[in-house]
Amino acid sequence: MKTESIMSNKAFLDTAESLKPHLYRKTVTLPGKAESLNRGDEATYDFGKHLTGRVRLVLSGEGHHPDAPVWLRLRFAERLTELSESLEDYRGWISTSWIQEEELRVDVLPAEIRLPRRYAFRYLRIEVRGISSRFSLKIREVSCEAATSADEEAPEKLHFRDPLLDRVDEVACATLRECMQEVFEDGPKRDRRLWLGDLRLQALTNYETFRNNDLVKRCLYLFAGTALADGSLPTCLFTEPEVEGDDQYMFDYSLLFAKALQDYHKETGDRKTAEELWPTVKAQFAAAEGFFGPDGLIRVPEGAEHWCFVDWNLELDKETAALGIWLYCAEAALSLAETAGDEAFRRELSEKMSARRKAAEALFDPAAGLFVSGPARQISLASQIWAVLGGLTEDPEILSRAASAGALKIVSPYLMHYELEALMKLGRKEETLGVIRSYWGGMVRNGADTFWELYDPEDPDGSPYGGTIVNSYCHAWSCTPSYFLRRHFRDR
Amino acid sequence: MKTESIMSNKAFLDTAESLKPHLYRKTVTLPGKAESLNRGDEATYDFGKHLTGRVRLVLSGEGHHPDAPVWLRLRFAERLTELSESLEDYRGWISTSWIQEEELRVDVLPAEIRLPRRYAFRYLRIEVRGISSRFSLKIREVSCEAATSADEEAPEKLHFRDPLLDRVDEVACATLRECMQEVFEDGPKRDRRLWLGDLRLQALTNYETFRNNDLVKRCLYLFAGTALADGSLPTCLFTEPEVEGDDQYMFDYSLLFAKALQDYHKETGDRKTAEELWPTVKAQFAAAEGFFGPDGLIRVPEGAEHWCFVDWNLELDKETAALGIWLYCAEAALSLAETAGDEAFRRELSEKMSARRKAAEALFDPAAGLFVSGPARQISLASQIWAVLGGLTEDPEILSRAASAGALKIVSPYLMHYELEALMKLGRKEETLGVIRSYWGGMVRNGADTFWELYDPEDPDGSPYGGTIVNSYCHAWSCTPSYFLRRHFRDR
Repeated sequence: MKTESIMSNKAFLDTAESLKPHLYRKTVTLPGKAESLNRGDEATYDFGKHLTGRVRLVLSGEGHHPDAPVWLRLRFAERLTELSESLEDYRGWISTSWIQEEELRVDVLPAEIRLPRRYAFRYLRIEVRGISSRFSLKIREVSCEAATSADEEAPEKLHFRDPLLDRVDEVACATLRECMQEVFEDGPKRDRRLWLGDLRLQALTNYETFRNNDLVKRCLYLFAGTALADGSLPTCLFTEPEVEGDDQYMFDYSLLFAKALQDYHKETGDRKTAEELWPTVKAQFAAAEGFFGPDGLIRVPEGAEHWCFVDWNLELDKETAALGIWLYCAEAALSLAETAGDEAFRRELSEKMSARRKAAEALFDPAAGLFVSGPARQISLASQIWAVLGGLTEDPEILSRAASAGALKIVSPYLMHYELEALMKLGRKEETLGVIRSYWGGMVRNGADTFWELYDPEDPDGSPYGGTIVNSYCHAWSCTPSYFLRRHFRDR
Repeated sequence: MKTESIMSNKAFLDTAESLKPHLYRKTVTLPGKAESLNRGDEATYDFGKHLTGRVRLVLSGEGHHPDAPVWLRLRFAERLTELSESLEDYRGWISTSWIQEEELRVDVLPAEIRLPRRYAFRYLRIEVRGISSRFSLKIREVSCEAATSADEEAPEKLHFRDPLLDRVDEVACATLRECMQEVFEDGPKRDRRLWLGDLRLQALTNYETFRNNDLVKRCLYLFAGTALADGSLPTCLFTEPEVEGDDQYMFDYSLLFAKALQDYHKETGDRKTAEELWPTVKAQFAAAEGFFGPDGLIRVPEGAEHWCFVDWNLELDKETAALGIWLYCAEAALSLAETAGDEAFRRELSEKMSARRKAAEALFDPAAGLFVSGPARQISLASQIWAVLGGLTEDPEILSRAASAGALKIVSPYLMHYELEALMKLGRKEETLGVIRSYWGGMVRNGADTFWELYDPEDPDGSPYGGTIVNSYCHAWSCTPSYFLRRHFRDR
């Protein structure tokens, strides 16, 4: 066994800083429209695809010499539907400051205006809110300098026999590309930060597409560098104005660091990183211990609200899923322990895994043939998925049985990914493809250029936030169909 | 008589460009307030005096790491009353783009933000329209880099025996100072451009205060350089993005170029300028000829709406006032013709003046003892004022008689200036002071830091534009009390 020394946060962050990616920039330019605009007029520009970047407007006046400023409202939208809503009417709990609008006063025409902020959008609506009656506004040109740390040329196009799969793959790649900035952002429109659970899915898809493995490495070191005093990792982190971890911890996200590191090591063979970050992995398992009762099962801590993510669903009882996640990540930790030569930890963890798998038998309802969760013995798809991935069952029918039994459904594409992983683990390749076709294909049928943060097939234009205007329609955790299609279905 | 050659517009503009003034800059900094702001909160900063310049904000977050942008609304106001109105409710005809508001989204905190536009204001209200619930906003500092081409130290303070006159003088100087930018602007908040009639009043006050005579010279050349093909001058001109005259001509404003040039020549003795601009003066008289009928009186051109300004009053019949203005400016032209050695023009103009004074007798109503104007024989103060200044009467009672007879009143401080000139010409020094005390003193009593574009003593908080939010509360044509007080009343 090696003598182990944990690097300081500062040393981790220095490594992360040295891996800061190059941003590839590409300008998309649209010519202005023929009409000139008066007060109350508007023009909508369609850039043809989702872009993340900075916008430039070229404006001039027509008529008399401009004798007043021009007051413009700019609205950026990932989907056209957002433009049918208004900021003023939005009453949801998401901060309205995320809504991509600007009010602009232009004192002098002609003008070339470079907006200082970054937007994520396909559509730009320009509305003339104020102008004098002596002149009108002519939009000469609108352009966007789009940026991404994905080398756009990298993922060769696939040609499936099913054009829907071609399109799903294309949209998934676009989703990841747009989220690849100086870190793997969760969404370039809203949140715009690095989340640990999301990182794992982005990295997985990255290995099959853009292969910017240094970006994965950078993100792993960023998390390691923002560990709290007890070594536990924040759920997400900010990079501006300086790198700082959020002060929220979540059980599942912190453990998934192990899985993300194992994936990375397997993909790259970068043993040095696996070793340097091994103590960070161990710290997550140490922190997770506090959630286990003496019976080897997980108990929701008193008063805990956001202790574990699993899915974007407040009704969900997460105890059983959390155990499955712990087991899933512990498997990864075993392999990393071997790489790091940490035999003592490996043995101890192995023993815990056996004991907890045994304890988990109490969570299985033999009559239903399903796993239950929590005091109310809730039956959810989440519990079954993580029971499969945690190695608690190999029953190939368990997911369909749960569905038939009216199990609590999946809300987020994030958990949909783990359903696909579970289906694949159970050898159900056709069902995996079927879900990709119906769920992600459903977004494609609804015009998606990039995959969404949330998608409810029964209410495609709905929003859990009280307005699509705050929805994120390009969200990294939805990008994994490209991982499955490219890894497992190249023959389709 | 000299051979006369009119310079090209280009040559005039080159001279104007060479006289571009230095802008004196001074930063006023206010510390932030103790409270931190959440959604819907606002803070109002009082800079203590009117400023024209660029604003800088220093912001930071308090609480958790900012996890969303901050959306701010900034409102700049010259008077506090503007802040009680809202842009959304404004329904008047002035372009809403003049309303001094900004919407700002700040992605990263802490932040130091330099707003790119210029504002004219004393008060700044910052309202937090959107922020997340995980942090609040702290305003650390607010500052304004104020600019003016007036050397602020120049006008020595006067000490009248009446403190109201001290204050009127101080406010009038501040008004002129704020309007002195790269040209004499009419108002630094709204319009922000060089108007010919206003220039004359600003120049007059400038000679008694800041004495930036090159700025007057620059403005005279700017007008000369924007003459139309027939030599006539635009009412106002723009300097951004390039110097360009507006396409509106007004009879009185164009003629007042002669008066402004004569004032300048008298003040500075700059004979070269008087000579170079003499042809421009002549061109205004040539253009004015078209407004005279064969009887030597002025007739409003068919369908003309804005042929002559006189006062900000749509009901006013302007024919008699216009004749008075012509005579007043012709007097100035006689003196300039002498300087330029243009004897032929001097003689011709002299003859016209005699004939038109004679013709003007038809405008006098002997029963009323007042001048009338137009087909409806309207009695206005404007007509009497310009009859006095045009040398049609020396009756010292004429203005008070007109007032008693219910003559149409004065609306703008611009015409109020000429009332004062008329009163002084009639030797009525006490009445002159009385009007300064009651009219401009009235604005002071209503809290003016700078004098207003329009002031109705019976409705100090009113607006002819349907909202004080678009009023200009620092307007150059109101600055002339300093001219009268410093020129004629230093002993008071």
